Amino acid sequence: MARSRTAKVLVQKHHGSSAQRVPDELIVEEPMEIRLDDHLVTTTMRTPGHDYELAAGFLFTDGHLAGEPVDDVRYCALGSAVDSGFNVVSVGTGGRAPRPEPRLTTTTSSCGLCGSASLADLAERLVPLRDAEVIPLDVLAKVTDLVAPAQDLFGATGGVHAAAAFDREGQPVLVREDVGRHNAVDKVVGRLLLDGRIPAEELGLFVSGRASFEIVQKAWAAGFATVLAVSAPTSLAVETARAAGITLVGFARGDRCNVYAPG
Amino acid sequence: MARSRTAKVLVQKHHGSSAQRVPDELIVEEPMEIRLDDHLVTTTMRTPGHDYELAAGFLFTDGHLAGEPVDDVRYCALGSAVDSGFNVVSVGTGGRAPRPEPRLTTTTSSCGLCGSASLADLAERLVPLRDAEVIPLDVLAKVTDLVAPAQDLFGATGGVHAAAAFDREGQPVLVREDVGRHNAVDKVVGRLLLDGRIPAEELGLFVSGRASFEIVQKAWAAGFATVLAVSAPTSLAVETARAAGITLVGFARGDRCNVYAPG
Repeated sequence: MARSRTAKVLVQKHHGSSAQRVPDELIVEEPMEIRLDDHLVTTTMRTPGHDYELAAGFLFTDGHLAGEPVDDVRYCALGSAVDSGFNVVSVGTGGRAPRPEPRLTTTTSSCGLCGSASLADLAERLVPLRDAEVIPLDVLAKVTDLVAPAQDLFGATGGVHAAAAFDREGQPVLVREDVGRHNAVDKVVGRLLLDGRIPAEELGLFVSGRASFEIVQKAWAAGFATVLAVSAPTSLAVETARAAGITLVGFARGDRCNVYAPG
Repeated sequence: MARSRTAKVLVQKHHGSSAQRVPDELIVEEPMEIRLDDHLVTTTMRTPGHDYELAAGFLFTDGHLAGEPVDDVRYCALGSAVDSGFNVVSVGTGGRAPRPEPRLTTTTSSCGLCGSASLADLAERLVPLRDAEVIPLDVLAKVTDLVAPAQDLFGATGGVHAAAAFDREGQPVLVREDVGRHNAVDKVVGRLLLDGRIPAEELGLFVSGRASFEIVQKAWAAGFATVLAVSAPTSLAVETARAAGITLVGFARGDRCNVYAPG
């Protein structure tokens, strides 16, 4: 069941001293609850659409699947509230994945809390990517322009992020948009996972905004050896990419780009 | 103890066929744990600095303080991990605020889950803002340019969001930057809270990016009657602003802007 991803509202557009009342298209933002074998894991604000991919991708990149395959993904209809069942998605592993604890309780005060500790946690469950073929910079330079025509929701609303998987020629093979940057990446990873294409060794990951720690974490989990961001990376994103063996390219605009990792 | 908010790394800058290795400045991203009366509430990835404001502002805008005043805010030193104590902040109310439950468990499956439900939850604890004086559009049109000179971290790194409180003349009275959009708003609200300036009836809230549901939620909780965003609002942000009695202005650039609420 396709749900609307944009909504029309009336808006007063002002330009200098002139004003007119016109319809405007906005990106839809709705909460979605993600469950693993019917146990609540998290709630995220997202743009409806590709919800199964989002749920599967989030659980995979966040480590909850623990290597177990996905048996099924479904909406949970919850009773009388109209439509609310389409905001709750459960990913099934037949109970093989460990029962999720709410994420908060996984932070323990005894282990310290800092960027290095976050990175160390990650390195415990992920191994560095090795022997990945490096995609030449002149190929990477084309990706932003190649993804742009597929950013339908951005064109309509200007209020949404995109993520894409691209091949060794820089061609996008999968583009997803969402009000949340992380969600767009999870939708890409979720699709690849459900198609049996993880680890994504032959593909690069494009993000339309910045590269934070969590974006690089998701790329690492999915096996992307290249991450290309239109905007800036954070310090922890660079540290993580260097530990992961990921080529991290930022400010990818026109014929300019910055290579932050390998260092 | 001031911690660094930017970090220098060596980067390969490419422009066409030329490349050079130069130092680049990145925004620092580190996890911070927020506690209420020593009980864990959440962990957020943030840029260090104004940590007390972030903790107090988050707990206030998210409803955890339940109207109780803040007695003290402090870092929790946790033992041997160097510096990790500066990533854990506890806000004290002398135990008067309700003991926090981890946020996840507050989502119940029985109540439905959708944008309207999120808005209804909010309307249960917040009353609409009334009789707020409307700030003229020609004043609002100046705010983005007036905030820009105070966006030091953006100037250095290009990878950070800003939020500001501004007065009826459009002058910023407080500007905060953070790798996370919500954090920048929480830092502004937290400062006002600690200064006894909440509800912020006389002030407007500026955000350098988009206006999502959570940004408008935070503005409502803090009593800002005007929210000015440089980029697009979401559909749920507009619904929430209309319910709250907040004037929501988006795409505030040069002499153009869009007024989304009141409708």
